[in-house]
Amino acid sequence: MVTKHQIKLIKSLAQKKYRQQLGLFAVEGIKGIEEFLDSDFKLQYLYTTKPIFNAPKHLIVEITDAELKKISSLKNPNIALAVFHIPKAKAIKKDELIVALDDVRDPGNLGTIIRLCDWYGVKDLVCSANTVDCYNPKVVQATMGSLTRVNITYMNLNEFILSSETPVFGTFMKGENIYNAELPKSGIVVMGNEANGISDSIKKQIERKLTIPQYGENQKTESLNVANATAIVLSEFRRRIIET
Amino acid sequence: MVTKHQIKLIKSLAQKKYRQQLGLFAVEGIKGIEEFLDSDFKLQYLYTTKPIFNAPKHLIVEITDAELKKISSLKNPNIALAVFHIPKAKAIKKDELIVALDDVRDPGNLGTIIRLCDWYGVKDLVCSANTVDCYNPKVVQATMGSLTRVNITYMNLNEFILSSETPVFGTFMKGENIYNAELPKSGIVVMGNEANGISDSIKKQIERKLTIPQYGENQKTESLNVANATAIVLSEFRRRIIET
Repeated sequence: MVTKHQIKLIKSLAQKKYRQQLGLFAVEGIKGIEEFLDSDFKLQYLYTTKPIFNAPKHLIVEITDAELKKISSLKNPNIALAVFHIPKAKAIKKDELIVALDDVRDPGNLGTIIRLCDWYGVKDLVCSANTVDCYNPKVVQATMGSLTRVNITYMNLNEFILSSETPVFGTFMKGENIYNAELPKSGIVVMGNEANGISDSIKKQIERKLTIPQYGENQKTESLNVANATAIVLSEFRRRIIET
Repeated sequence: MVTKHQIKLIKSLAQKKYRQQLGLFAVEGIKGIEEFLDSDFKLQYLYTTKPIFNAPKHLIVEITDAELKKISSLKNPNIALAVFHIPKAKAIKKDELIVALDDVRDPGNLGTIIRLCDWYGVKDLVCSANTVDCYNPKVVQATMGSLTRVNITYMNLNEFILSSETPVFGTFMKGENIYNAELPKSGIVVMGNEANGISDSIKKQIERKLTIPQYGENQKTESLNVANATAIVLSEFRRRIIET
């Protein structure tokens, strides 16, 4: 059974303010919950209609379908909702390939970028303070468990870039053709906001401007979706290592 | 002024059933509307609070902010909403690079895939009947005008593939490393459903199974988002031509 107090607490986790106050966030869906249980993340409570999970018994709360519906943020809740503690970010490994997001606002974009980082072995994702919160339920959902394997740090991007010694890359309409560019194993790849791209203050710090070339006669597309651009950029950085 | 009848009609266009019955769809936002006005799409009516658009005067309906709010599907409507006629799909150019979607359901994914096709000069996108409708307001929004430059055909994918003579490609966890694969200028690239990938009947028709290699020690990611995978695959097909 889930108490009124618990329902109120869980529902409040849809808002960043309460996630930060309480240091907690929610995960839904069997696969996602299993990935978090299987990671370093610490479980607070697991609410489920079917206790099929490998979790400490005293943290499992059996609930009814009606109760799950009350606490879930999904249209079609799936068996369980787990509440985990938000961990402290670990130290950033500065001599590796790092993705830095300059005010990415869409939860789906952030979620799939986290999956891309996981796929391409990018261990650190650095987000500007105005980037959407990675514990937002829609982000957690879109990451499909990759959130457990990528270290995410929110901080002032200008300060982060100033403090780092590896080359800084960004994509622009006019720049070096990414397909022929020499790309190192380590560096910072900055990806910008959905509507405005990379902000002016960050732009000044970018040493290598890259372009994803368009193809065909009809080059009227003004931009790619930021997650799709990240996919192509990370693919290019890693291709050079995987190919040889 | 917008009549009650018009409000009802415009709101009904949020649903596929009514879009198909009426042969109409809605576009919002200045840039999107300008791209459609600048294309072969035929305007029915343009409802706007600021008549700044290059459209026939008798098709422009001046409305108030309150009226725009009533007809808009956006939280923050932006100056105008235009209703266009759904065009007939043109004949597919079978000897070029074609993307085929096997039940892609998320409007954001379809929208950004249309943008990718536009970016990489893919003129034809073929969608299975269960793929989300490309005139869904969220798809239209996500395409950022690219919908005017990509020919989209909904049909039985099995029949389409059977009727075509170019090689058929798909991405799988185990396949040929896409970075080293020989990829031709023309062919069909099949991308699968968000949860289930490519369906069994289509799988049998795929001649070239490609893999986007993961990088690093920690290869636990099960899949990439379908739009991000499309980005990487199209990038690889076009890189081979752009590079040389």
